[in-house]
Amino acid sequence: MSQQNLESLDVEAIRSEFPILEREFDGQQVVYLDNAATTQTPDAVVDAMSDYYRESNANIHRGIHHLSQEASEAYEVAHDRVAEFIGAEGREEVIFTKNTTESENLVAYAWGLNELQAGDRIVLTEMEHHASLVTWQQIGKRTGADVEYIRIDEDGRLDVDHARELIDDDAAIVSAVHVSNTLGTVNPVSELVDIAHEHDALAFIDGAQAVPNRPVDVEAIDADFYAFSGHKMAGPTGIGVLYGKEHLLEAMEPYLYGGGMIRKVTFEETTWGDLPWKFEPGTPPIAEAVGLHAAIDWLEEIGMDRIRSHEEEIARYAYERLDAEGDVEIYGPEPGPDRGGLVSFNLESVHAHDLTSIMNDHTVAVRAGDHCTQPLHDKLGVPASTRASFYVYNTREEVDTLVAALDDARQLFA
Amino acid sequence: MSQQNLESLDVEAIRSEFPILEREFDGQQVVYLDNAATTQTPDAVVDAMSDYYRESNANIHRGIHHLSQEASEAYEVAHDRVAEFIGAEGREEVIFTKNTTESENLVAYAWGLNELQAGDRIVLTEMEHHASLVTWQQIGKRTGADVEYIRIDEDGRLDVDHARELIDDDAAIVSAVHVSNTLGTVNPVSELVDIAHEHDALAFIDGAQAVPNRPVDVEAIDADFYAFSGHKMAGPTGIGVLYGKEHLLEAMEPYLYGGGMIRKVTFEETTWGDLPWKFEPGTPPIAEAVGLHAAIDWLEEIGMDRIRSHEEEIARYAYERLDAEGDVEIYGPEPGPDRGGLVSFNLESVHAHDLTSIMNDHTVAVRAGDHCTQPLHDKLGVPASTRASFYVYNTREEVDTLVAALDDARQLFA
Repeated sequence: MSQQNLESLDVEAIRSEFPILEREFDGQQVVYLDNAATTQTPDAVVDAMSDYYRESNANIHRGIHHLSQEASEAYEVAHDRVAEFIGAEGREEVIFTKNTTESENLVAYAWGLNELQAGDRIVLTEMEHHASLVTWQQIGKRTGADVEYIRIDEDGRLDVDHARELIDDDAAIVSAVHVSNTLGTVNPVSELVDIAHEHDALAFIDGAQAVPNRPVDVEAIDADFYAFSGHKMAGPTGIGVLYGKEHLLEAMEPYLYGGGMIRKVTFEETTWGDLPWKFEPGTPPIAEAVGLHAAIDWLEEIGMDRIRSHEEEIARYAYERLDAEGDVEIYGPEPGPDRGGLVSFNLESVHAHDLTSIMNDHTVAVRAGDHCTQPLHDKLGVPASTRASFYVYNTREEVDTLVAALDDARQLFA
Repeated sequence: MSQQNLESLDVEAIRSEFPILEREFDGQQVVYLDNAATTQTPDAVVDAMSDYYRESNANIHRGIHHLSQEASEAYEVAHDRVAEFIGAEGREEVIFTKNTTESENLVAYAWGLNELQAGDRIVLTEMEHHASLVTWQQIGKRTGADVEYIRIDEDGRLDVDHARELIDDDAAIVSAVHVSNTLGTVNPVSELVDIAHEHDALAFIDGAQAVPNRPVDVEAIDADFYAFSGHKMAGPTGIGVLYGKEHLLEAMEPYLYGGGMIRKVTFEETTWGDLPWKFEPGTPPIAEAVGLHAAIDWLEEIGMDRIRSHEEEIARYAYERLDAEGDVEIYGPEPGPDRGGLVSFNLESVHAHDLTSIMNDHTVAVRAGDHCTQPLHDKLGVPASTRASFYVYNTREEVDTLVAALDDARQLFA
C-alpha cells in the first residue's frame, strides 16, 4: 500500500459527499472516528432512498400495478446486487434481515433450535460480539448443547491449535467474527471453516466489521453462513444481510412467520415459499434495500481494495502514534495484514469513559465501553476501552487531533 | 361526518406533500388505491430521515460523543412519541420491531413458546392476517396448544357468541385484527379483550389497519399487546411497533439476543437490560424511528378523527358506486362505523388479477390476491379479490376512475 494509492483515493472529494462531517460543536468540526458502531451515509445513498419514497414507493410481492412492479423489481435486484458483491451464487442465498444480530438469531432459531441436542458443541471465539455470544449461549441452554470458546493469545490473535482441539466430531457449529470489533484482529476464517468442515460442522462468519472494509468472497471462504449490516457500510439502518448456502437454507424451517413467505395456508397448516422470501415475512425493509444497493454501488465505485488500504494505513498511523505516547495500552495485534481499521486502547489510570468525554470536548467522536464484548474485556482485565475506528473518509489529521486530546485527559485525570 | 368536514381537510394541500401522486404512466396520473399494502410517504417524513442522515447519524446506546447523544435522544424520544400517540404509559411499553409481523412473532416466541402447553387454546379469528394466523398455528404445533377460529357471519362480522364459546378457561391467548385488511370490518376489540380477561387469557390486537386510520387508545381497549407498522401510516419501511403492558413485557424473556439488550454478559451467562431495550438487540431502525416520529407529527397535525372521517366517506362512496354496478360482489359489512377505509370485491366472472391488470391500464393501483388471508378467501369461496384501499389523500374522483375502468374489464373478459 503506497502513499500514491492513498492520494488517488481523493479523500477530500469523498468527504464532500458527507455533509455531517462538516458539523461543528462549539466551533470545532466533528472528527468522526466511531465507524465500527456505524458509518456515515453519503448523499448518493440518502438520495436513493428519498427518490424511492418520492417516485416508486409501494409494497412488493409483485403487485400488478406499476408502482408495485417498480418496488418489487428494486427490492429483488438489491438481493442480486448483494449476491454479486459478496460472491454468492444468487438472490436465493441472500436474506434481508433487520441487522447482523437478527441474521445470527435467524440461524440460531431456524437451524440451531431444531437441530442441536445435548452432547453437541457450539464453538465460538473469546472475541465474539454479544450478537453471536449471547445468542448461541441461550440456544445452548435451550437445547443442551455445550458452548466452548477458542482462546486468544497475548497479541489478540486466535489460538488455532485450540480451535483444532475444540472443533472435533462433537462440534455442530462454529461461529466466529471475521474482524474483531474490539481487537481489530482479522481472523483466519477460511482456515476455521476448513477445520469445521473436516468435522462436518457448520461455519457461521460474522462479517459486520469485514464487509464494509475489504473485499469479501463468501464462496472463497466457503462459509455456510455469513452476516453483515447496512449501516456499517455506508448504507442505512434497518437492514442486515444473512448469506447462506442454498441447500442449507432450503432445508431449514423458517423462524418468523407471516405474509409473503408462504405457498399455501389453510386454517390447519402452511407450506413455505421459495428462497429467499421464505425467511422474509411481512413487509421487508424495501427503501433500506434500495439504500443498501446504492451503498454497494458507491463502495465499488471507490473500490474495496482501496478502501481496505486506506483504512489499514490510517489505523497503522493511529496505532503508531498512540503507541509512541508510552502511557497508552493498545489491544489486539500490531499493524499488519491481520489487523483491520480500528484501534481500541486505554490511557494509563484514566477510565475509558472519562477519556472519551475529553475526546468529545475536542469533538472527537470515539466510543467508550465494552463494545458488546464484555467477556473479552473481562479477559483483558479492563471494564472498558476507548475505540477509534476508521472509514474511507478519515484522515491522518483527524488521528492527530485524537492524539493531541490525550494531553488534556492526562492533566485532568492522571 | 359532513361534506364540510371533508373540505376542511384540504386534500389538495395534502396531496402536494406527496410527489409520487403526480407520477404518470402512459400520460395518465397514478390513482393510488393500495394503501392497505403501504401508504405513501409525505415530504415531511422523507426529509426528517434525510436530515437525520445528513446531520445527526450515529449509533445509539448513549455513546458519549455529541452525535451519538443526538441519535440516542432522537431514538428514545420516538418511543415516547409513539407511547403518547396510542395512549401507552411510556417508552417501556413501546418496542420497535421491523414490522407488524415481527411484533406478532415476538410475543409468540417470547411468551407463547415458553408458556403454552398441550391443552391450552389459542383463539384467532377467521379474518386473521397470515402474520398472526401462521405464527400462532406454528407455535401451536410446537407447544401442543390448539388453535381455534372465531367464525365470521355472512356480513363479514365476527360472531361474538362464537367468541364466547371458544374463549373459555382453556384459552391462553386471543389474537385478533382490529380492522380486517380484506373485509374492512372493524372488530369489537374492547369486547374481545374483556372476554379474554374474564378467562385470564391474554389479548393481542393486530392494529396494522387501524392505527393509520383512526384514533387508537390501547389502554381504553385494555389490550395486553398491540401491533402496527410504520409504512402503513405515512411512515417508513423497516420499522414496526409492539405495544405491551409493562408487567407482561417485564416478565417475558427476550427472544432475540445480542448487544444493547443485556445487563451483564460472561462466557457462561447473561442477564437482561431494561425495557424496552431488552427486546431491541443490535443496531435498531434509528433513522426509521425518526421517520415514524415525523409521520405521527404529520398525522396528528391533520387529526386522526378527520382522517377516519375522510376515509370512511371515500370508502362509503366507493362501496355505493361499486354496489350500484350490479355485477360486483363486495366483501365485508355495509358502510357504517364498523367498516374501515377499504373495499374488496370481485367483478362477476372476471378473475381479480385480470381486473386489476385492467385497472393498471388506467393507472389505478389496486391490489389483487388473497391479501395474506388465504383461509378467509377459501371461506368466501374465491381464490382472490381486488382491493381498493384509501388514505387521507384520496378523492372521490379517483373512485370514479376506478369504477369507470370496470367497463373495459367487462368488454375484455366478461
